[in-house]
Amino acid sequence: MQMQYRRLGHAGIKVSVLSFGSWVTFKNQVDVQRAIECLDAAKQAGVNFFDNAEAYAGGESERIMGQAIRELGWKRHEFLVSSKYFWGLHDGPNTSNTLNRKYLLEAIEDSLDRFDLDYLDLVYCHRPDPETPIEETVRAMSDAIERGWALYWGTSEWSADEIRAAWDVADRHGWHKPVVEQPQYNLFHRRRVEKEYARLYDDIGLGTTIWSPLASGLLTGKYLDGVPEGSRGALEGFGWLAEQLTNEQQNAIVRQLKEVADELECSLAQLALAWCAKNPHVSTVITGASRVEQVHENMRALEVLPKLTDDVLDRIDEITQA
Amino acid sequence: MQMQYRRLGHAGIKVSVLSFGSWVTFKNQVDVQRAIECLDAAKQAGVNFFDNAEAYAGGESERIMGQAIRELGWKRHEFLVSSKYFWGLHDGPNTSNTLNRKYLLEAIEDSLDRFDLDYLDLVYCHRPDPETPIEETVRAMSDAIERGWALYWGTSEWSADEIRAAWDVADRHGWHKPVVEQPQYNLFHRRRVEKEYARLYDDIGLGTTIWSPLASGLLTGKYLDGVPEGSRGALEGFGWLAEQLTNEQQNAIVRQLKEVADELECSLAQLALAWCAKNPHVSTVITGASRVEQVHENMRALEVLPKLTDDVLDRIDEITQA
Amino acid sequence: MQMQYRRLGHAGIKVSVLSFGSWVTFKNQVDVQRAIECLDAAKQAGVNFFDNAEAYAGGESERIMGQAIRELGWKRHEFLVSSKYFWGLHDGPNTSNTLNRKYLLEAIEDSLDRFDLDYLDLVYCHRPDPETPIEETVRAMSDAIERGWALYWGTSEWSADEIRAAWDVADRHGWHKPVVEQPQYNLFHRRRVEKEYARLYDDIGLGTTIWSPLASGLLTGKYLDGVPEGSRGALEGFGWLAEQLTNEQQNAIVRQLKEVADELECSLAQLALAWCAKNPHVSTVITGASRVEQVHENMRALEVLPKLTDDVLDRIDEITQA
Amino acid sequence: MQMQYRRLGHAGIKVSVLSFGSWVTFKNQVDVQRAIECLDAAKQAGVNFFDNAEAYAGGESERIMGQAIRELGWKRHEFLVSSKYFWGLHDGPNTSNTLNRKYLLEAIEDSLDRFDLDYLDLVYCHRPDPETPIEETVRAMSDAIERGWALYWGTSEWSADEIRAAWDVADRHGWHKPVVEQPQYNLFHRRRVEKEYARLYDDIGLGTTIWSPLASGLLTGKYLDGVPEGSRGALEGFGWLAEQLTNEQQNAIVRQLKEVADELECSLAQLALAWCAKNPHVSTVITGASRVEQVHENMRALEVLPKLTDDVLDRIDEITQA
Repeated sequence: MQMQYRRLGHAGIKVSVLSFGSWVTFKNQVDVQRAIECLDAAKQAGVNFFDNAEAYAGGESERIMGQAIRELGWKRHEFLVSSKYFWGLHDGPNTSNTLNRKYLLEAIEDSLDRFDLDYLDLVYCHRPDPETPIEETVRAMSDAIERGWALYWGTSEWSADEIRAAWDVADRHGWHKPVVEQPQYNLFHRRRVEKEYARLYDDIGLGTTIWSPLASGLLTGKYLDGVPEGSRGALEGFGWLAEQLTNEQQNAIVRQLKEVADELECSLAQLALAWCAKNPHVSTVITGASRVEQVHENMRALEVLPKLTDDVLDRIDEITQA
Repeated sequence: MQMQYRRLGHAGIKVSVLSFGSWVTFKNQVDVQRAIECLDAAKQAGVNFFDNAEAYAGGESERIMGQAIRELGWKRHEFLVSSKYFWGLHDGPNTSNTLNRKYLLEAIEDSLDRFDLDYLDLVYCHRPDPETPIEETVRAMSDAIERGWALYWGTSEWSADEIRAAWDVADRHGWHKPVVEQPQYNLFHRRRVEKEYARLYDDIGLGTTIWSPLASGLLTGKYLDGVPEGSRGALEGFGWLAEQLTNEQQNAIVRQLKEVADELECSLAQLALAWCAKNPHVSTVITGASRVEQVHENMRALEVLPKLTDDVLDRIDEITQA
Repeated sequence: MQMQYRRLGHAGIKVSVLSFGSWVTFKNQVDVQRAIECLDAAKQAGVNFFDNAEAYAGGESERIMGQAIRELGWKRHEFLVSSKYFWGLHDGPNTSNTLNRKYLLEAIEDSLDRFDLDYLDLVYCHRPDPETPIEETVRAMSDAIERGWALYWGTSEWSADEIRAAWDVADRHGWHKPVVEQPQYNLFHRRRVEKEYARLYDDIGLGTTIWSPLASGLLTGKYLDGVPEGSRGALEGFGWLAEQLTNEQQNAIVRQLKEVADELECSLAQLALAWCAKNPHVSTVITGASRVEQVHENMRALEVLPKLTDDVLDRIDEITQA
Repeated sequence: MQMQYRRLGHAGIKVSVLSFGSWVTFKNQVDVQRAIECLDAAKQAGVNFFDNAEAYAGGESERIMGQAIRELGWKRHEFLVSSKYFWGLHDGPNTSNTLNRKYLLEAIEDSLDRFDLDYLDLVYCHRPDPETPIEETVRAMSDAIERGWALYWGTSEWSADEIRAAWDVADRHGWHKPVVEQPQYNLFHRRRVEKEYARLYDDIGLGTTIWSPLASGLLTGKYLDGVPEGSRGALEGFGWLAEQLTNEQQNAIVRQLKEVADELECSLAQLALAWCAKNPHVSTVITGASRVEQVHENMRALEVLPKLTDDVLDRIDEITQA
């Protein structure tokens, strides 16, 4: 199955419709070698966007991805790499849960060190910060681009109103505008991408790199009979996840979706990924994997895309009561 | 004959009315030594603008010109050198047939490496890209100038509407505006420069560095009796050119123009070059040569310029049915 | 109890914290004489803002309010009157469910005829229209003000993103900006006013004239034992309301709120109105009445305001599980 | 067949996909009574846009349309009426072939007199004027709207570059922007609408009200055997038309298109109208008629629209060598 590429909203850059993110999988569960194998497998499958964040594994996720890029000998024009900023790696009034200028510029520069790259392709504000004026944040992100530390910037989990405010202040002043939002999006979490952002796709050309396409694993079906050992829901400090993942009302829906997947001759996860990718306002679906086989399984979601006819989509809507 | 210099539109920089380009001539037909001789001859004739592009000979054209500049010991203030970007040297969704930010900035930086120069004088968008917002392209070109990688930027083969859109978004945001367009222009190809761009010369001060003044060689007259061996039309992969060059209707016109040239005691090519240069909206006519004698012949077009009286021009218009 | 007046957001105009609206009450339930009595009573109680809309009773609501103003001899400086536009009084592609320029300007002019006034104080876009650019709507509203047909304009039930987009395009072009939003707000419907608009109060100085403070009557408690005859829920064509009003889960909450009201020695409706008015981002609470006694009862909600201590508010939050 | 309505580009106003224009048909060929019958028939078929121009029949076309509107008792919200300005009704340096401020404002006011209307819905600059700055023209058109003389304005037969320049200067200054262009468009005249304006549909939301869908009658097929008596091509002063209409190369194409029409069981004219309407960038196709039966025949083009499958369109492209 050939990878497909989509423009990141109205931006001129194109991202593979399935991309690869390294959330908690790096360091916590995977040793460096397996990380490198997964990145290699993803790139060979046509993935060109690799998502990361300062906060993932306390900076280790960036460090490992940088090491992989060097070891695998990737050329700079062959890949897009991102990072995101908000929580910070250091406690303190100005260095965590913030989007102030000092934090952002220091944090991005530190990221470059960890990656050992001259610049990132995308940098994100990982959450909105009500205690920093949007103008200050926008200016800092734009300045990071001016300094050559990144090529594009965006937001993650911002409201439509906040995104528009950011875009507008940038447009007025001739600063670099946000081009992308990274929202949660999956069969259980649709309102924001489908409703709240509706006007932004045309008005400001917003692209989306969506996360949690499998609803933290709920849409793999592996939590249908409780939390299996070794799964993310069983990790220490992820008790909140375990609770969500075993919600009976949602798992009843998951069972019905499993039937659809069976009919389409694909796994539930593949169905869930393909369903996200079917939305034309989704630029790329960020997938995760801790083993090479998982990468391959995820990529086969591309084969499911053409099977998602209007009839199938209607049926899925009914099951999920959308 | 003294070289003449013209402002590049309303820009303050001046270009020799005849300039020198290195399209397919470098690497393919000319060895490095002859390239250096041609560049030297052109410069001694007063040429100060040397046109190039990333795509010419897969990057070799830039490399050779850079080598020539060093060997000839040109001072940085003595010459203007350009390059152009669009097709790219690497296949892939973000690296060919595009004007996205990532491609442009990476490509310009790579050009500097090949030239071994700190900056270029002019950088062009070689073609329009309908899949990148004009604003993104304009910002990237402006940022390349901000970073010190180039002094001016422009477009090539863009529509009037696209050029104005680019100028406008730059003007609104205080970015570096495009100052020049590189269009095809010759006795057989006049509409764009004379009609379509008409409002732009005053409105935004557009300069033009025109290419193909000899209509790919048609206006040398050497294709009047078929494609001669060793000519560009005989090169492998240039079959499309051969067909155009032997078009009978056009060659009938060429024969009549030859008579005019004879009366003016110049070659047909000199007449054709001078005719382009006569248009005050043409800043410079880009000429090509693979031998030093050709450089000298081209330069003597300057002597034809004063012979192009209104009567002669009217007669040429009649012949070409303009 | 003295009426209080609040600025309409950052605008310089002040509205009584309790105001009077004429939704379905005019024409349908109330004869003209009673309408005039209610308006008189409200004004004597200090109300200075009288809300209306083109769509209320098919234009009759505006006509009757205009007649009342004349009969009661109100001076133009003593009152603020509004109308709202979206649904239209004529079917057709350009005259209903729209905010296009033609509709808005023709509709506002027709309103002035029905009111027999030279201008209105506030005009609202009654709903958002996804098929008209926000810029076109903003320009038409601004032009209505330029023509002297209104003094201020605003929106009703627009998303935060839409309001900001409207404000922004007006601000950029120097047009009259929207100063007010008329959202639904009551103890059961809080998210928009409290969360979604949160950034707008400071950013653009948004005022709010809130409607349905009693949740269509649910918060009067009169639907605790079914839909009483003569109530709005019993009106023909309002079956959907009856269903909402007898929702058991909500009425369980209403019962608990009734206890709070009893302790504060006020009616449930008074508690609900005062609770809305307690929110400093609410400029005015639009009340309705079809009898003079109801006006008086509503106005006594002002006496409840000082009783809404932090403790009481917390308890109400607990009851409503906010 | 139900009339369809389309937004005029991004504007909020909707026009019937087939509309009615009164070019040379009023006064010259049709007496007032027949004009009124045609307008009535068109409106009853769902047409809501009625095109006119100052120059049509020296002002009489506007006068007759105004009379018809009064006699037929149309309400102002039921119809859209346009006029266009450039050639003028008075010879002189400032009153003909111009778009200067004095001419435009005087001409539009005179139009209102002839129509006996308070305002027109759309006013157009009938041609570009290279001797008036676009800024002066744009300001005058915007001011006509400010004065309440029109609701929207546009251009006719302007280049993409000129339209963008007009839009841009309006946008910068907060003036009313052009929303529509009236270009020639038909099976023999496609470049401008399909190529030249391509970027404008998204960039500035340009709508189009296209004229000459039948190529001056060529696409009715009635000129296949010369110019029939009583046809427009036989009118005095229309010799240039007769020549065009009997062009053999074009009529050869017309004959082939006639075969397609026969297979689709419609007239050639209906095919030609439907083909124009099939283009989503065409807001409305302006049709003409001098008899009520012609109106009815034109309107039946709506029935052909669904028959224009991709296969049929491809075949038409082949026939017309597009």
